[in-house]
Amino acid sequence: MGGDGGPAVTTSAAYAVRDHATVSLFGDRRAIQQAAVAAGIPSPDAGWASVVHSDLAVSADDGLRRILRQGAASSLGLALQQLRNDQVDAVISAGDTAAVMSLSRHLLGTLNGVARPAIAREFLGKQGPFWMADLGANVSCTADQLHAFGRQLVVAARMLSGIDAPRCALLNIGVEQGKGPELLRRTAQLLDADAETDFIGYVEPSELFENRADVVICEGFVGNIALKSIEGTASMARHMVRREIAQSSLLQRMVLGMLRPVVEGIRHGLDTDRYNGAQLLGLPGVVVKSHGSATSRAFEFALRRAIECVDQALPERLAAAAR
Amino acid sequence: MGGDGGPAVTTSAAYAVRDHATVSLFGDRRAIQQAAVAAGIPSPDAGWASVVHSDLAVSADDGLRRILRQGAASSLGLALQQLRNDQVDAVISAGDTAAVMSLSRHLLGTLNGVARPAIAREFLGKQGPFWMADLGANVSCTADQLHAFGRQLVVAARMLSGIDAPRCALLNIGVEQGKGPELLRRTAQLLDADAETDFIGYVEPSELFENRADVVICEGFVGNIALKSIEGTASMARHMVRREIAQSSLLQRMVLGMLRPVVEGIRHGLDTDRYNGAQLLGLPGVVVKSHGSATSRAFEFALRRAIECVDQALPERLAAAAR
Repeated sequence: MGGDGGPAVTTSAAYAVRDHATVSLFGDRRAIQQAAVAAGIPSPDAGWASVVHSDLAVSADDGLRRILRQGAASSLGLALQQLRNDQVDAVISAGDTAAVMSLSRHLLGTLNGVARPAIAREFLGKQGPFWMADLGANVSCTADQLHAFGRQLVVAARMLSGIDAPRCALLNIGVEQGKGPELLRRTAQLLDADAETDFIGYVEPSELFENRADVVICEGFVGNIALKSIEGTASMARHMVRREIAQSSLLQRMVLGMLRPVVEGIRHGLDTDRYNGAQLLGLPGVVVKSHGSATSRAFEFALRRAIECVDQALPERLAAAAR
Repeated sequence: MGGDGGPAVTTSAAYAVRDHATVSLFGDRRAIQQAAVAAGIPSPDAGWASVVHSDLAVSADDGLRRILRQGAASSLGLALQQLRNDQVDAVISAGDTAAVMSLSRHLLGTLNGVARPAIAREFLGKQGPFWMADLGANVSCTADQLHAFGRQLVVAARMLSGIDAPRCALLNIGVEQGKGPELLRRTAQLLDADAETDFIGYVEPSELFENRADVVICEGFVGNIALKSIEGTASMARHMVRREIAQSSLLQRMVLGMLRPVVEGIRHGLDTDRYNGAQLLGLPGVVVKSHGSATSRAFEFALRRAIECVDQALPERLAAAAR
């Protein structure tokens, strides 16, 4: 039910992955059926998915207290409870980040040894993928918590991106040792002393896409600022490409038509859809948060990401790393 | 002498604006002359610029204490002293931000009523320009200082971008009132109470390029994270466009040749050169900081920006706003 698109987005995306997963749809049964009709796909009643009805949806406006009190009966809450009871293997939501985060933590608890869950995501850099966390689950973290995020990120990068020995860095405004707030210096000491983590020091946001590091740890407020700055700039870049094409002459546009693969390549490269789907690290189950403004195609990537996490037994491996 | 390119970049850029300003070059005389020869432009001795010799250049590695003690004799220091003595109207440097900032403050002092200078810059959004500060001059600010940055940004946006009644916002990770650190909530109260500032609330970095606000205030650490995230993502976008074109077939590239205006438009749009040149607000003179990796063309934009600041009497107007 979550996200800007609601069931219209999530239902058709779920239909697209029906051969790769057993699909359960949590939400308003009627809205789901209408979404299927509108998308021109069979009704879930035809057997491709089961529906767990709930007409209660949590939203960002509800406030944390109300979400925790009433959220268990919501579509998200019912899904998380099935995850807790091993009835499903993963929960994917396009709902509000704070709601997904707090309700997950409330209904699932955290992994042993993990004080605070973190939001992690894979990005595509110039040389390949890299990972970042925390992207906004926590607005104040301790050095110990940031250290724990790093250990979990290393597992995620190894399992989900196939990076053998992930190089780990801390996000800061400079690479010199004395730079940035005291919290980062304390975290750097912990990471330096951790023989299992290949800590390479600080990395600046301008160097992220140069793949200086495979795994980048950030305090949640700062990580959220970086994430949203990246999203805003990528959107601006897509806007500029579109505008130039729209402003070109008819003849130029005809020629551009011949170049469809090149233009599509540029669009595709600037496209964040393919990397939609943030992992909530530190929970005893797979919870993937899709971008709220995700298209059906983007939500499908979040579903595939969740399937991959289950295939790789990510929560079990994260539990081992947290100890 | 500063920046990755040194005199090779700055000398030829200065030559390009010689008809719009009286140019003084501060630095190693021999290096400047060699740079002129290499660029195929006349020597400054031919009369298009005066040279103030110094073979001492400050760098980020020097440490703040050494910069303040020895910096007055450096090329940057000599330039700033001429600015203080009204011998020049503006100083433009591609040197290290911390060095430019600290030496400017040390040699020029700050405007009456301004406790801390801020780094401000104009960005191009989807609907037009917008301004941000502080982008990294300060790693911890008070609410009063952030409020003062806002008042100065409003002047800069009005004078340099022609925005009549700039809407002012605070950079945060959400738009809801309770979001983010306490510092932002205190600053929001001050801005709300300021009848001269059209404060519209919080803005998220993902919305910056949507021009929700004309002027965006941020704490220096956070602003620097946002700035560098924007720069890194813009670089990634340019990389993708280049890669798609390089990977296209010979035929496709020939066709692309016919589309030069469109392709150049895309490149140009993703280009940060045109918006090179950050203002140091709060000083009693025009100091413009170019990006360290600026090309000659980009440095020229920083020079033109400085000329514009002088034409608009920006320091005098900022002084009036600070009171």
